[in-house]
Amino acid sequence: MKPINVGLLGIGTVGGGTFTVLQRNAEEITRRAGRPIQITVVADKDVTRATAITGGACKVVDDAFAVVSDPNIDIVVELIGGYGVAKELVLKAIENGKHVVTANKALLAVHGSEIFAKAREKGVMVAFEAAVAGGIPIIKAVREGLSANRIQWIAGIINGTTNFILSEMRDKGLSFETVLKEAQRLGYAEADPTFDVEGVDAAHKVTILSAIAFGIPVQFDKAHVEGISKLDATDIKYAEQLGYRIKLLGITRRREQGIELRVHPTLVPAKRLIANVEGAMNAVLVQGDAVGATLYYGKGAGAEPTASAVIADLVDVTRLATADPENRVPHLAFQPDQLADLPVLPISEVETAYYLRMRVEDKPGVLADITRILADEGISIDAMLQREPDEGEAQTDIIILTHICVEKQADAAIAKVEALPVVQGKVTRLRLENLQ
Amino acid sequence: MKPINVGLLGIGTVGGGTFTVLQRNAEEITRRAGRPIQITVVADKDVTRATAITGGACKVVDDAFAVVSDPNIDIVVELIGGYGVAKELVLKAIENGKHVVTANKALLAVHGSEIFAKAREKGVMVAFEAAVAGGIPIIKAVREGLSANRIQWIAGIINGTTNFILSEMRDKGLSFETVLKEAQRLGYAEADPTFDVEGVDAAHKVTILSAIAFGIPVQFDKAHVEGISKLDATDIKYAEQLGYRIKLLGITRRREQGIELRVHPTLVPAKRLIANVEGAMNAVLVQGDAVGATLYYGKGAGAEPTASAVIADLVDVTRLATADPENRVPHLAFQPDQLADLPVLPISEVETAYYLRMRVEDKPGVLADITRILADEGISIDAMLQREPDEGEAQTDIIILTHICVEKQADAAIAKVEALPVVQGKVTRLRLENLQ
Repeated sequence: MKPINVGLLGIGTVGGGTFTVLQRNAEEITRRAGRPIQITVVADKDVTRATAITGGACKVVDDAFAVVSDPNIDIVVELIGGYGVAKELVLKAIENGKHVVTANKALLAVHGSEIFAKAREKGVMVAFEAAVAGGIPIIKAVREGLSANRIQWIAGIINGTTNFILSEMRDKGLSFETVLKEAQRLGYAEADPTFDVEGVDAAHKVTILSAIAFGIPVQFDKAHVEGISKLDATDIKYAEQLGYRIKLLGITRRREQGIELRVHPTLVPAKRLIANVEGAMNAVLVQGDAVGATLYYGKGAGAEPTASAVIADLVDVTRLATADPENRVPHLAFQPDQLADLPVLPISEVETAYYLRMRVEDKPGVLADITRILADEGISIDAMLQREPDEGEAQTDIIILTHICVEKQADAAIAKVEALPVVQGKVTRLRLENLQ
Repeated sequence: MKPINVGLLGIGTVGGGTFTVLQRNAEEITRRAGRPIQITVVADKDVTRATAITGGACKVVDDAFAVVSDPNIDIVVELIGGYGVAKELVLKAIENGKHVVTANKALLAVHGSEIFAKAREKGVMVAFEAAVAGGIPIIKAVREGLSANRIQWIAGIINGTTNFILSEMRDKGLSFETVLKEAQRLGYAEADPTFDVEGVDAAHKVTILSAIAFGIPVQFDKAHVEGISKLDATDIKYAEQLGYRIKLLGITRRREQGIELRVHPTLVPAKRLIANVEGAMNAVLVQGDAVGATLYYGKGAGAEPTASAVIADLVDVTRLATADPENRVPHLAFQPDQLADLPVLPISEVETAYYLRMRVEDKPGVLADITRILADEGISIDAMLQREPDEGEAQTDIIILTHICVEKQADAAIAKVEALPVVQGKVTRLRLENLQ
């Protein structure tokens, strides 16, 4: 059968991996797809580097717009990233009737609705397995594998950089800053790590997962985003003593009033499988009403793991492009005219449990005052840890784990606790999820 | 759009779950599939029970052959099980141009080639996500999600009954017989548990996984099958002391000479995620050349988890049936004219590491004799444990973990060790996989 001709936009890490794996596994992929899938043209600003990587096996150009208009190209793979020219190129490719495969989570989380609408209009596929959790086929699992279920919630370790940092902080008892430097040296964190460590990357990904799980539009601007840069090694240690690990989770949950969509450091019971996902690995836990909990684990980044997802999408498009567009797997798992207008809840309306750490004077009655405030706000206590003061100190730490409450209740209680004269400074507040 | 009409053959546990979930989540499923998916007719020998379950929501008949010939039926769901009438019905449904969804692992592992050939001839889909690992979308992951990869091996906990028994044996230090009785009482094991505990069920499933991973025909008769009924609680304890857990794994691995296809109790390093999968849960670890290791975890049995997979297949067929049959996802992941004729290797040619336990006289030179035999057979030792004899005993246990060797080497060495006058009785031999 006629080969599928692919135009590759951007041959950096993932683009290079895609090129390599498509070449190395050409025979295996053809046996699966029923026809060869070949990169016919690569567009990259650095033509010299691109030519070195492709070794003359395909055309190299510096003008990506020429590729999206090339009549020989069946599928455009966009690996440029960002919202700028990538968006223009994707829309132009769709306009020209080409299927698109992209790893661009930022683009889809922010401009997905516009892109999918255009794709529908033109009857083309837009596939994005590589946008979430790298090589783990989580998009396919949620969109197709669990389609019988009313999904209840998803919680995922979907940023390898932060999971690596948290693993190292726990293992070695080091501070965030020290481990970040090590991660940068090892190539696990970028020179400007903001997107990763502040949770933005994870929020892009959980925004996409939320849309395909609940049938709502992508709406990154509604996500609550907190990273790990302010996380104190002390809290990792206390969490461990209480039987928990701290992970940066992307969480989305369906409630009657709306959808929770949030990224933040989270205490998770140490005995859960997901709590034991270490280093740069990713894992996503999905709770469905029929299937119960399922977990998906693997490498969430890197040249070849991400290429694995890009190429799976190429094979998918090759296999399924002939299906009637009205019947094909919808871009966001649900039929476009069936998206729900459930609101994304503000963080103040989120329901979760809490870890609270406070520095208090070692005096009688302190604990009574604090627990009274919590009780008055309707917050019940699940566990408590009070350290003996260090030798010669007049202050000590109290750690309280609460049961589930609404965040604004917790906010109100924390404000009152902080106002107590015996409580020093701010209360450290982390969220806790039992994931059951 | 016009509803999809489903004929359900057999409304036992999984059939009942399928009926319930399709009804409960009708709205959600329609939003995904683009049209209602409805069970129009149920065939079951027990018409009274079937009518009670369906509550008059659809027609109930006792003649399954009438359903597979019913011109109104688009998809036939076969949940009867076994090789007998189920095979006839599936072939007849295909013959009549109907798509088939089945959870029947035994049927596919043994007669898959015949069934898929007939389906190809008729241009219909045969979907079987529920046949392996219940609600975990592992078929979809391997067949579609990892299609970029040259799969290297798969190792899975794919029988919940045996994993429950092994977890209990380890947790409580009880014997196989005791725990089996408890499992039967709790409904985790059947009255006749042979298929589960002797590894046959797991072998059916790994046979299917092997086919879709490596592009070979299903060939259950070539699988090496060992269950857990002879497993001694002593070995679980020693394994733990050495940092391992014992799991019944279905393993299939690609080697240059052919494919390994085997089910047996296996020592796995305790720190691996899969070693921590407890109770009746399932998990499958897949190693691909591009993606590395990915793991899929969830409930492998039960009414609704299995129904989740059956219904996902119904949605898939609804979404994709309009695709050109030549291009659609092939039944066994690879194009039918591209199946490889790699042989399935006999167990004597398998490569693995070993756990060897032997009872020896507590005399000088015993260990030297044993290690000499291993060295002469080219087997190197990875770890050793020798217990002090119990008070008043003249014998003790030696446990040896070997590096990887070919099984026939191990067989030869074991025969020689057993022939030593200082070694009492048989050597207990378990296989060990590092899964990395």
